[in-house]
Amino acid sequence: MLAASGIALADDKPAIKGPPVPSLITGTPEEGFALAVKLSQKGVVFTQADAKVRSGLRGQYANDPNSLIAVSHVVAVHFQTVAAANNYWRK
Amino acid sequence: MLAASGIALADDKPAIKGPPVPSLITGTPEEGFALAVKLSQKGVVFTQADAKVRSGLRGQYANDPNSLIAVSHVVAVHFQTVAAANNYWRK
Amino acid sequence: MLAASGIALADDKPAIKGPPVPSLITGTPEEGFALAVKLSQKGVVFTQADAKVRSGLRGQYANDPNSLIAVSHVVAVHFQTVAAANNYWRK
Amino acid sequence: MLAASGIALADDKPAIKGPPVPSLITGTPEEGFALAVKLSQKGVVFTQADAKVRSGLRGQYANDPNSLIAVSHVVAVHFQTVAAANNYWRK
Amino acid sequence: MLAASGIALADDKPAIKGPPVPSLITGTPEEGFALAVKLSQKGVVFTQADAKVRSGLRGQYANDPNSLIAVSHVVAVHFQTVAAANNYWRK
Amino acid sequence: MLAASGIALADDKPAIKGPPVPSLITGTPEEGFALAVKLSQKGVVFTQADAKVRSGLRGQYANDPNSLIAVSHVVAVHFQTVAAANNYWRK
Repeated sequence: MLAASGIALADDKPAIKGPPVPSLITGTPEEGFALAVKLSQKGVVFTQADAKVRSGLRGQYANDPNSLIAVSHVVAVHFQTVAAANNYWRK
Repeated sequence: MLAASGIALADDKPAIKGPPVPSLITGTPEEGFALAVKLSQKGVVFTQADAKVRSGLRGQYANDPNSLIAVSHVVAVHFQTVAAANNYWRK
Repeated sequence: MLAASGIALADDKPAIKGPPVPSLITGTPEEGFALAVKLSQKGVVFTQADAKVRSGLRGQYANDPNSLIAVSHVVAVHFQTVAAANNYWRK
Repeated sequence: MLAASGIALADDKPAIKGPPVPSLITGTPEEGFALAVKLSQKGVVFTQADAKVRSGLRGQYANDPNSLIAVSHVVAVHFQTVAAANNYWRK
Repeated sequence: MLAASGIALADDKPAIKGPPVPSLITGTPEEGFALAVKLSQKGVVFTQADAKVRSGLRGQYANDPNSLIAVSHVVAVHFQTVAAANNYWRK
Repeated sequence: MLAASGIALADDKPAIKGPPVPSLITGTPEEGFALAVKLSQKGVVFTQADAKVRSGLRGQYANDPNSLIAVSHVVAVHFQTVAAANNYWRK
């Protein structure tokens, strides 16, 4: 993000990274939550495209309560967006 | 989340983790708050699926004021989403 | 939250904790702010149910500017929710 | 907030603290911003009611860039609430 | 913010600080982003009015990735407010 | 941001920095996500205009899980704004 690898800071179309996001519309809140997790991961992939580096970091954050809480916070923001997109899956 | 265990970064359906979320609609703000807590936990379970590891971390975060404040922050974001979903339980 | 004491991660009704939240509707912004503080505390109580532990931590966070700022941040998120619930107490 | 001094965690009306907030409606964005700052301070006063303690902490946070950025973040959340309350002061 | 210099915690009109914000309405997203940056700075000026102190801190935060990310986060919250104020500059 | 290089704190038009943002409207969620990343970077460029400094910092944040999570959080806030601008790309 500061000088994200690969993404030119000029006005061309930045290389699209991570799993594509075809739509924000999901059938259930459960699928909406899984999409929110995917979007959170995508935000990391855009900044650190090297899957080996990312896997190497897992030992740190997956055993650090503050990192786990921070991840849950990012998921909460994306879930708020996805829930609004799906009109909160109201019947 | 960086390289969440189990969740393929490809575009297949990520394994749905943690307690399922059937609906965001609740009868009262009190139940809405409990759902917000559950969603916050779900965000952690998605990243650290090992219940034993999570329990092992409790000693750290449950006695650290900054961790407790950070947890409350995640709950606040999810509660904002659940409250909007329920039209703020207006009569 | 990671393995919140008492709250089963299964899909049963989590034990409702802390002061009950009967409604988000308040008469004035002032009461709305007090409710936002109460909701922030409730988020902590859900994770650390032991009042003695919480009181014991006060010496740390109540004299740490960054903790106090973080608390104010959680209150701000809840106040945003309560203000929207009350249509911003517009006359 | 964890065990906020003075605020009973029971369901009685918490003591209202800090400068009262009569209304979220302001004449201009400038006044709205000043109100957002006041609300941010109020969130601190609710947790640390002792003005002498708060003043004593100023030397720490007012010279720490990360604390100053964190304060600005809380003001931004409250300003978002106040701006919505005033329909963004649209003519 | 905890005991912001100059701002009385009583209910009088707090001294208005930093560059005035005449309006949230801008012609383009680009100008809206610049306004969001200005609002972020204003939140700092309200807490640390001394320009010399603020400049003296630049060496710390402008070379600290986490501070730069935290600044970008505050700008993102203000940009969300300004974008909503301008109905997302939809044609 | 505290004393952002180049940006006068007076009320003149701050120098517009980083890749221009012509519009928030995108064809797909995927392009919306790429725009959210670009806006996150823009928030950094406004504060640290020196591309060499930014690149020099990459080694720190791109290998720090907490920095990567914090970046993803900023992207999530901007994506929430861009998604609302595009009415969640509902068909």
